[in-house]
Amino acid sequence: MNAVESSVNAAPVADWRNYPIHANLAGVHSASDRLSVTWSDGRISPFHHQWLRDNCACNQCVFSVTREQLFEIVDAPESLHPQRTRIDEHGHLLIDWQDGHHSSFHPGWLRAHAYDDASRAERFARQPQSRLWGAELSEQLPQFDYPSVMSDDSALLQWLLAVRDIGVTQLCDVPTTEDVLPALAKRISFIRESNFGVLFDVQSKADADSNAYTAFNLPLHTDLPTRELQPGLQFLHCLVNDATGGESVFVDGFAIAEALRQEAPELFRTLCETPVEFRNRSRTSDYHCLAPIIALDARGVVSEIRMSNFLRSAFDAPVEQMPALYSAYRRFIAMTREPRFRVQRRLNAGQLWCFDNRRAMHARTEFDPASGARHFKGCYIDRDELLSRIRVLQR
Amino acid sequence: MNAVESSVNAAPVADWRNYPIHANLAGVHSASDRLSVTWSDGRISPFHHQWLRDNCACNQCVFSVTREQLFEIVDAPESLHPQRTRIDEHGHLLIDWQDGHHSSFHPGWLRAHAYDDASRAERFARQPQSRLWGAELSEQLPQFDYPSVMSDDSALLQWLLAVRDIGVTQLCDVPTTEDVLPALAKRISFIRESNFGVLFDVQSKADADSNAYTAFNLPLHTDLPTRELQPGLQFLHCLVNDATGGESVFVDGFAIAEALRQEAPELFRTLCETPVEFRNRSRTSDYHCLAPIIALDARGVVSEIRMSNFLRSAFDAPVEQMPALYSAYRRFIAMTREPRFRVQRRLNAGQLWCFDNRRAMHARTEFDPASGARHFKGCYIDRDELLSRIRVLQR
Repeated sequence: MNAVESSVNAAPVADWRNYPIHANLAGVHSASDRLSVTWSDGRISPFHHQWLRDNCACNQCVFSVTREQLFEIVDAPESLHPQRTRIDEHGHLLIDWQDGHHSSFHPGWLRAHAYDDASRAERFARQPQSRLWGAELSEQLPQFDYPSVMSDDSALLQWLLAVRDIGVTQLCDVPTTEDVLPALAKRISFIRESNFGVLFDVQSKADADSNAYTAFNLPLHTDLPTRELQPGLQFLHCLVNDATGGESVFVDGFAIAEALRQEAPELFRTLCETPVEFRNRSRTSDYHCLAPIIALDARGVVSEIRMSNFLRSAFDAPVEQMPALYSAYRRFIAMTREPRFRVQRRLNAGQLWCFDNRRAMHARTEFDPASGARHFKGCYIDRDELLSRIRVLQR
Repeated sequence: MNAVESSVNAAPVADWRNYPIHANLAGVHSASDRLSVTWSDGRISPFHHQWLRDNCACNQCVFSVTREQLFEIVDAPESLHPQRTRIDEHGHLLIDWQDGHHSSFHPGWLRAHAYDDASRAERFARQPQSRLWGAELSEQLPQFDYPSVMSDDSALLQWLLAVRDIGVTQLCDVPTTEDVLPALAKRISFIRESNFGVLFDVQSKADADSNAYTAFNLPLHTDLPTRELQPGLQFLHCLVNDATGGESVFVDGFAIAEALRQEAPELFRTLCETPVEFRNRSRTSDYHCLAPIIALDARGVVSEIRMSNFLRSAFDAPVEQMPALYSAYRRFIAMTREPRFRVQRRLNAGQLWCFDNRRAMHARTEFDPASGARHFKGCYIDRDELLSRIRVLQR
């Protein structure tokens, strides 16, 4: 790359991103409905007239205070053409439109938003990828130090990247007071409330409104599959754990789903395509959600696991699909029990789990409430808030 | 129907639903992997052995306090068969399993969960359906009286059903104090927080972090398309509106999407299939979301509109798809501007809008901040909480 490197904030309207110039504009050619831009590294990027007019960032088209568009593309004719195009002495692409409007595009911004195949593939390759794990994570558990995370933004960022990419993390040296969890959450964003409260107490209760609030073995599950959006991150802060039993278990739901895709593709497809209902009813609430157990993103990558056997309704599927649904469901549960996927750890007072609730299924082994106290404090934060915080820390 | 009607709470474990007996069990026949049940009205319902064992509601299989399953189907062999089946003197289906376990099924519960084609079609037909509207809603605006909604559960239910099925409602006789909105929200559930706060103030501000906080014309949009889950309900409570201009505009995004499906099916498909990025950046947050403008549910019915031109990123689609994307996007915006779809109303002090933010796009005409004060207080509640509240009120 022989292009001039620069890292000025070059967008016409500040949006907190930099657009370094990786290649210069070398030429512009007109076609019927688009311009074809040639870059100094040989790449050719087509830009449709509509796209260019739509992305004009002048002060008439975008409000400089909010950096939000005032113009709407439907207010320009569909046939709008450039009258004149040129590359100016700063390397910007200038367009004089037929209707008298003028637009100017910074080469760094234009390259960052080019939609030729090579540019799109480059952007795709830069997206964060999940690192799948199995039982070996037990030896390499991502552990972070609470005082550092609270005081140091780079320690905070390292922790949050591990939450995003690995999905299970542990904080150590956490004070065992009830004000810790709200303070920690605030380091990231605001808390996602539910009918169980802003904070919830995981304790064995006589009047339990969830099996989570008993001393039973609680099989591997995600929390609140009964909601359209399952909570993104779950925090479990151990205040006291003097009871016998009650170890934490985690599996990587993404790793299990990918293994299922390899080992039994038709069962994987069944879990991606069959909506299953989850429900939770109490005297004051009545939640239902109907969605598949495995969700894929637009690229076909596993993006979410929704699963809690104890919150599942009776399967409701066409008669001919029922046997396949049971085969797939049985296989999935059986896989969550396989040692190759499982990490089992006791959480002690002063430790805290933070995990991706839509990826890492979690479980608790049975404990004996007569043997000692056990009290975890919990809360949720959504993935949107995690990702927003990471982007701000990375600016 | 000559079946005995009864409305005892007949599920073995109370789940706050009644299972009236619309038909009695008339016979049970065994097939290889299922039982075939004949009802007194002639309907035949197959039930697979796995399904029946999975739904055993005895005290061993379900914890009676939480009404949640303890048993997991993978703990029964895939080949499990009934040893003996019969209908007892109460009309229940009894099964003695090969492995010694016993199950009993109430005929009302069994019929309510039968998955033969006729039973599934019956359940499908009972699901609530959106009532689509256009400009004529202006003459029939669903209006409710705040004092009644606060004091009377049946008035509350009528209002919430209108929110669910029509998507735009107005409350009148609302006190103009800032404590009203949290109290009203509490009648339904808890508030969905965002980076704009638990409550937000819609006012013209010099340091606006959204075009919503200016005096500009704000085109038809949904709020927070930048989040994976757009807020379900939006509340806008008018405390003062002495400014010139600033009228509220609503369109039914579902009605526009259905009209587009009729009038230009290929453009409709483009908006259902092309992910579009929405983003909102401030000094302390940086939200992105990539999703199509129109979302369909599992039945192919329009279930969500995600659209805000001023929060949209540059389109990023393969070159050959870009012209179709612009055609579809232009057409959609043009439709939101058509008089046939639009309801325009001024909201005055003491009035409140409550609308489905994922369905009813809303706009504000330009106002003159020098002409008088204008202050709306806003908050969000999600659809899950609305539906839960409706179900509890309907018990």
